[in-house]
Amino acid sequence: MEWVSGGVTAASGFRASGVSAGIKRNRRPDMALVASDTPAACAGTFTTNRVKAAPVLVSRQRLRHGAARAVLLNSGCANCMTGQQGLRDAVALSRQVARALGVAEREVLVASTGLIGRRLPVPRMQRKLPLLVQRLSRRGHRRAALGILTTDALAKEAAMAERFGGRRCHVGGMAKGAGMIAPHMATMLCVLTTDARIDRGLLRELLREAVERSFNRISVDGDMSTNDTVFLLANGRCGVRIRRGTAAARRFAMMLHEVTRRLAHLLVKDGEGATRVATIAVTGARTDAQALACARQVASSSLVRTMLAGGDPNVGRIAAAAGASSARFRQEDLEVRVQGRAVVRHGTAVRLDKAMGRALFAPRELAIHVNLHAGRARAQMTACDLTEAYVRLNAHYST
Amino acid sequence: MEWVSGGVTAASGFRASGVSAGIKRNRRPDMALVASDTPAACAGTFTTNRVKAAPVLVSRQRLRHGAARAVLLNSGCANCMTGQQGLRDAVALSRQVARALGVAEREVLVASTGLIGRRLPVPRMQRKLPLLVQRLSRRGHRRAALGILTTDALAKEAAMAERFGGRRCHVGGMAKGAGMIAPHMATMLCVLTTDARIDRGLLRELLREAVERSFNRISVDGDMSTNDTVFLLANGRCGVRIRRGTAAARRFAMMLHEVTRRLAHLLVKDGEGATRVATIAVTGARTDAQALACARQVASSSLVRTMLAGGDPNVGRIAAAAGASSARFRQEDLEVRVQGRAVVRHGTAVRLDKAMGRALFAPRELAIHVNLHAGRARAQMTACDLTEAYVRLNAHYST
Repeated sequence: MEWVSGGVTAASGFRASGVSAGIKRNRRPDMALVASDTPAACAGTFTTNRVKAAPVLVSRQRLRHGAARAVLLNSGCANCMTGQQGLRDAVALSRQVARALGVAEREVLVASTGLIGRRLPVPRMQRKLPLLVQRLSRRGHRRAALGILTTDALAKEAAMAERFGGRRCHVGGMAKGAGMIAPHMATMLCVLTTDARIDRGLLRELLREAVERSFNRISVDGDMSTNDTVFLLANGRCGVRIRRGTAAARRFAMMLHEVTRRLAHLLVKDGEGATRVATIAVTGARTDAQALACARQVASSSLVRTMLAGGDPNVGRIAAAAGASSARFRQEDLEVRVQGRAVVRHGTAVRLDKAMGRALFAPRELAIHVNLHAGRARAQMTACDLTEAYVRLNAHYST
Repeated sequence: MEWVSGGVTAASGFRASGVSAGIKRNRRPDMALVASDTPAACAGTFTTNRVKAAPVLVSRQRLRHGAARAVLLNSGCANCMTGQQGLRDAVALSRQVARALGVAEREVLVASTGLIGRRLPVPRMQRKLPLLVQRLSRRGHRRAALGILTTDALAKEAAMAERFGGRRCHVGGMAKGAGMIAPHMATMLCVLTTDARIDRGLLRELLREAVERSFNRISVDGDMSTNDTVFLLANGRCGVRIRRGTAAARRFAMMLHEVTRRLAHLLVKDGEGATRVATIAVTGARTDAQALACARQVASSSLVRTMLAGGDPNVGRIAAAAGASSARFRQEDLEVRVQGRAVVRHGTAVRLDKAMGRALFAPRELAIHVNLHAGRARAQMTACDLTEAYVRLNAHYST
């Protein structure tokens, strides 16, 4: 199993492109297309927000068909809270892509990210669609990854390759994140592709598990978007068939997890205004749910996250966040370690001299370990810090 | 029923004082004492955090006794995660107060706020205790209110008077808040006093209900402290007896609610870095719990709160936060009003021109109304905005 380049087009038979249609004001790419040369089995995971964007509603419906040929994405406008007109806009754009590619309309999935409450600039986008289709290529993955960014600083791509019975199989993907990450699935768009052949049922299970272990384990600001979407397309072009319950399925799942974890990590690192990333491992919880609740509470505490921003060794905030969660434990059993060093022992803060405290919190990537000493369950979350830059970015987003 | 001055000493028979013992570095008052000339019935509400500060553990134990003569408070140090030594420190200080006042040790309640994980500077505090006792006076309420502040900008006091059968009865109090406010009870200290005579059982009920409707309805940063404490002391000095189920009890409850609501409002207004306060009213929910969950989610959303900071009419974030809560509603029924003006109707954003949008979000106190159109239940929360100043304050709190 090895990391390879190529992102969303690392897998055979996939092409991608990205163009600027002027949806965003900065003239950066804001439309992206990913297409498979042959029909691909497809699974998707969407936001659990009760307010769902039009592209989420359209794609969820189309996924019932089970096969897809293309995913059309845009940034700069979420096409959310746009009523019936928003649905018509999403359908119209996907229809044009379907015609240009010579595939069925229902085989085109859609995803949008950006400002909520505004209609897509459909005519402007329609004028750019021919170019988007024309530019589809094996090397277009980077432009596509750029086309879905909003306040992200960097394009996020990852891909792996692995041999299955002499044949090389790939899993690759691209994602965008930045804000509104958590508590369930990042506020994010992600397209994953593989050239393995996998039945829809298994594909859905593999995706659900991978998302649960990656995108559902990160937190940027505790907000949940209306547009979260993760697609996984499998076109079978490498000739490898993945069957349920086999050793190959386990290896494939590992590869998929590696790719989604890498993308999730990139999302947190590139969280809005983020300067520091912390991994919060909770052990010794009574149940898995309590372990996760505790990790999530620490990861999304404003006070823990501002402490991380300042590199300020105010470790009581970690304990206070753990205590505020639904995890059950005895105060006098609580242990907290930062970078392996005990800062809370038997529920009592360990006195750190100032220089040591600052040094402990200096690294850009921090390991925080909370041991509740109440059981055997564990969970992990990755979070970024809360900085003045986050507030600046979000205080004037729409204007 | 009328507002009066006097804060925590507005009620007869209460005296207060505040001094600086150098716990805080800025030489501002950091110790406060409230004393009743006669034994007072007493009720308390504490943090539900599993990590509880030493003064919380001590006071909770002492409240079982039911009568109190004094409350000793300090800011600058939370005396939390200080183990057995922290308990001994709290007890030692209260013992000294008890001796100076000539009352039983168990009649002295304690509360602390400030940095977690550090011991109280006991000798320094003990040297100042005689002065604190000596300065107890009817006019000391202001100094006492100042003595409990941490990052708060302003002292928070409120008091009301009302006639019951020809006799004037008072309810007054002081509070400190600033950060770590919510999700259950503000991170706060609050001492409430009344000169009515009320049995412990009724007193507890009255306090619980008042806290639920005031301090449990505000959100500053979604964090929950280890030190939250609200005391209510009733010394009976005005000669009015409040009995359960009477018209007088209802009027007294109203007065108590007014005082706690005023204090809660002052807490939000003075939230760390706050420049704007929003009242979030949710109506049309299926159940009270869903209404409250929805209001709480909107009130504590980082994206809603940064939007408020910028005065940026990005109303989709209000809808997204409502949709992320556990409240059940149909997207197409959602209605959102800001200052009475519909900004989301039938789940669709209403197009606002830029000037109108900015004008709508310009006021320093905003009314946001979310109607789920799914039932008859309602709830309300008050929140402040999330500003760069909040991050600045909290990134370097301990150093």
